Amino acid sequence: MAQILRINLTDRSAKIEPIPEVYQKLGGRGLTSAIVGREVDPLCDALGPNNKLVFAPGLLGGTVAPTSGRISFGGKSPLTGTIKESNSGGQAGQYLARLGIQAVVVEGTASAGKWCKVVVTKDGARIEDASDVAGLNNYDTVAKLQEQYGTKTGCISIGRAGEMLLSAASIAVTDRENRPTRHAGRGGLGAVMGSKRLKAVVLDPQGADRVPLVDAEAFKAAQRKFLNALNSHPVTSEGLPTYGTNVLTNILNEAGGLPTRNFSSGQFEGAEKVSGEREHDIMKARGGNPTHGCHSGCTIRCSGIYVDKDGHFMSKAPEYETVWANGPNCGIDDMDAIARMDRLYDDIGLDTIEVGAAMAVAMEGGVLPFGDAEGAIRLIQEIGEGTPRGRILGSGALVTGKVFGVNRIPVVKGQAMPAYDPRAVKGMGVTYATSTMGADHTAGYATAANILGVGGKVDALKPEGQAELSKNLQIATAALDSTGLCLFTAFAVLDDPTALEGICEMISAKYGMPFSADDFVNLGKKVLKAEREFNAGAGFTKEHDRLPEFFKREQLPPHNVVFDVSDAELDTVYRF
Amino acid sequence: MAQILRINLTDRSAKIEPIPEVYQKLGGRGLTSAIVGREVDPLCDALGPNNKLVFAPGLLGGTVAPTSGRISFGGKSPLTGTIKESNSGGQAGQYLARLGIQAVVVEGTASAGKWCKVVVTKDGARIEDASDVAGLNNYDTVAKLQEQYGTKTGCISIGRAGEMLLSAASIAVTDRENRPTRHAGRGGLGAVMGSKRLKAVVLDPQGADRVPLVDAEAFKAAQRKFLNALNSHPVTSEGLPTYGTNVLTNILNEAGGLPTRNFSSGQFEGAEKVSGEREHDIMKARGGNPTHGCHSGCTIRCSGIYVDKDGHFMSKAPEYETVWANGPNCGIDDMDAIARMDRLYDDIGLDTIEVGAAMAVAMEGGVLPFGDAEGAIRLIQEIGEGTPRGRILGSGALVTGKVFGVNRIPVVKGQAMPAYDPRAVKGMGVTYATSTMGADHTAGYATAANILGVGGKVDALKPEGQAELSKNLQIATAALDSTGLCLFTAFAVLDDPTALEGICEMISAKYGMPFSADDFVNLGKKVLKAEREFNAGAGFTKEHDRLPEFFKREQLPPHNVVFDVSDAELDTVYRF
Repeated sequence: MAQILRINLTDRSAKIEPIPEVYQKLGGRGLTSAIVGREVDPLCDALGPNNKLVFAPGLLGGTVAPTSGRISFGGKSPLTGTIKESNSGGQAGQYLARLGIQAVVVEGTASAGKWCKVVVTKDGARIEDASDVAGLNNYDTVAKLQEQYGTKTGCISIGRAGEMLLSAASIAVTDRENRPTRHAGRGGLGAVMGSKRLKAVVLDPQGADRVPLVDAEAFKAAQRKFLNALNSHPVTSEGLPTYGTNVLTNILNEAGGLPTRNFSSGQFEGAEKVSGEREHDIMKARGGNPTHGCHSGCTIRCSGIYVDKDGHFMSKAPEYETVWANGPNCGIDDMDAIARMDRLYDDIGLDTIEVGAAMAVAMEGGVLPFGDAEGAIRLIQEIGEGTPRGRILGSGALVTGKVFGVNRIPVVKGQAMPAYDPRAVKGMGVTYATSTMGADHTAGYATAANILGVGGKVDALKPEGQAELSKNLQIATAALDSTGLCLFTAFAVLDDPTALEGICEMISAKYGMPFSADDFVNLGKKVLKAEREFNAGAGFTKEHDRLPEFFKREQLPPHNVVFDVSDAELDTVYRF
Repeated sequence: MAQILRINLTDRSAKIEPIPEVYQKLGGRGLTSAIVGREVDPLCDALGPNNKLVFAPGLLGGTVAPTSGRISFGGKSPLTGTIKESNSGGQAGQYLARLGIQAVVVEGTASAGKWCKVVVTKDGARIEDASDVAGLNNYDTVAKLQEQYGTKTGCISIGRAGEMLLSAASIAVTDRENRPTRHAGRGGLGAVMGSKRLKAVVLDPQGADRVPLVDAEAFKAAQRKFLNALNSHPVTSEGLPTYGTNVLTNILNEAGGLPTRNFSSGQFEGAEKVSGEREHDIMKARGGNPTHGCHSGCTIRCSGIYVDKDGHFMSKAPEYETVWANGPNCGIDDMDAIARMDRLYDDIGLDTIEVGAAMAVAMEGGVLPFGDAEGAIRLIQEIGEGTPRGRILGSGALVTGKVFGVNRIPVVKGQAMPAYDPRAVKGMGVTYATSTMGADHTAGYATAANILGVGGKVDALKPEGQAELSKNLQIATAALDSTGLCLFTAFAVLDDPTALEGICEMISAKYGMPFSADDFVNLGKKVLKAEREFNAGAGFTKEHDRLPEFFKREQLPPHNVVFDVSDAELDTVYRF
């Protein structure tokens, strides 16, 4: 029986309650956005006691459905002021689901300096003092917690960035090797966790029952159908397992859509040196592992293990967006330097995209030269140390631009754009502009049809059809983010109808209710509508669904294109 | 014949044109807001080439009307994202009006590093290279320009803060002694000037004709009527001339509405030491001058000359809001230290309110202790030096709070609240919340009826009647800001009907048109409507017309009050 765990840190209570009817049969983003939408005042202070932080595994969390271990984190974002859902791999999603917890709702805030942790076992949840791990970064925090609670537990934690309430702070989730390498990066939810003085949540799934399935046989059949679709699609069966997400560096560079040196060009002369192919070769040659899942039960396994020249673990293999943000976007072409940055980001607890984008803005502002990898590493360390310079970067690209007098700031609703220039991948531009989350590639991954030829083909360089493309992807993504399945399953879903059939049939079999492809689409629409409603209450209007002016003014080489999807077109995205 | 001077810094052109019909018979804020509203895209980048910076003397500028020398600066604000009008004393308003320039519109932007200045004489305007003064602060800039162009010129300039595009950068205007002590402080228009790489405007009024009056006799009679009203009101004839604006420190402290240590109390134990009475005594004892006008033609003369123990000039006498922001609000009770800060602010070109508020936020964030005057002075110097810490402070209170992890940030629409706690002076709270400018005491000075008993009496601690009070004051202020008259004439206007009669009759006599009290009110409404329209186009909604949550949650000692004017009441302000 799924339940809700309410932690109130003002009065230090932890209560496990039956899940209210209005939240039943919801999961992941659908559930976090429903709870935040109903329970959080859109005008509250994102770092005050009236914001809530919600964690939720997906509808299929805890089952054997492939890639179903994503966990959603939700709340009002201190970075954007909008509602926020940011999801992560790692073990926590499966563990929570197996513990019968459909959502954790963290409310209130502990007194200054009184850091807390929450421990959840099959017997319930308790709040404990966390002064022993306060002030530590994620790697040390997790190591200490594993000593205390054993290596069969999973951990959700924040590093120094979250403690300092920096707007680019992430929430870390431990992976299969008990390392804090998986992050809910976007939107500063780590700062929300820090504002509540919640340092960590320890999840001990030992002895927990299996997740109940109403029709186990039907589930098994559906699961096979879905797995088969994943195993048949070239992206999920070959591209991602072999090269990881960083397979995209060469592809985007080729397409002229790889934002270089703070979005001043769409091609980087050093792209090949930081490509997925090169990353793969380095891992292979040094005894790392390019093909590895970010959580148990993942069959795509795009998340590698990156090691140094002596074969020692450095970091999980940097993802494409991390490589881009801290590589081409900063004029840096050194893969090992990027892996060191990745490790620092994970340790301090930072969004690699937001800070990488801020770094490039700082470089444009003359803080350090483009291409200065050692300088960038030093600056990331400074974030952990809390120097003024470090704190500026840790507050994201917008603040960094304001402070250093740079007005080419690639953000929407305060959140930095990821690794796809909106002028050369215009469908992504529509997603950045209109997403309920601020600029976010995962919200409606138009790169699929714009660049990869997945789910049809829409010319990346032309404005036509981009709004419709983004709209449909945003709806499907909002639904998929509610299932707990990895977004990468969408590649199969877009090309192979049996993939979505498998998903719907698994949900149907687990909950014992009809669930059709139409229900899936309606779920996505419902989630987006709840999010838009929250944002309207926070003062967001269509005027916020726009890209910064310079994307309409400055031509992007090599195609010399500007962003020219009209405002009127952008405003059609939410007409459904 | 009034004309418009259009400076385009992209193509380095300076054209004097007849004023278009749509801008005729407008002045000051009415004219800057009309031009910005019609010519600037509300979604443009405030620091990009498509923003415009407009200067305009008032409707009565250049005449002998007492206090008619105010000059309005307008544009889109990089601090708030709203339309912005910020006005200043000093000589420039009169000089521009006498040169027949009703408005200067600065467009485009010069190339990076190519600093320009504009010189306006009776023979026209020209753009000159300003590399000799680039990098200098205001005092040195003005001294150098006076050497070059003579001491009979006036100067509008920016210091290092404006050059660095910091959001708290002001625009300086020289006073009667040719010192850059009068500032358009609020909203970062100095950064807009910096973004265009316009370092200074030199105004040489020598040989200019007198400002034409259609009916000189009627004007003289009206001017006498108005002067008589000013000379009869106790605030404009006694309080302000004797003690300056800082007469308010003791009054607000007594009323429990003096925000202390970042708005955590309404009373400061050291208030007396930084009061207007003390400031007056210091100036008297040392041979300064407490009774001195900020521009020729001022009969109120609230702006003193503050000198050191040896009688040497330190700064103009710090105004109440400057004293408050950098004194009680920072726990500082040292008048000489505040005068040193005032001088630094004027020199670097910074809004004393915004940076003082940011300083208190930084103190709350542990950057330096409350009460550390020498630390605060050092930090202001750092702004001029462009250190990361200095740049943070120079970006205003909101950025400072974000960077240093402080969430008690007293801003509305990104602009810091001035010297009246909205919980204990609730009419000011309504003005802060609803003003088109972000938190701004001058936009509708409800302190008059809340605290001073001028223009009626509305209980400062109760929510009733505050929205109506603020509305009427905001309308009257928008009109008054269009005349070029000092806001302080409003004290007379609120209590003595002959004051407004005098103003209307002067306008009528100057322009040869009927101008009634109703026309005055309608002008105010028209200005506010144009400003609201711009803001709506920039995405502002009623959700932005709210105070930060903590004012509704935290009780303010000694009255232990919260801000409790309802949202519904706030939304009535713009129903007219």
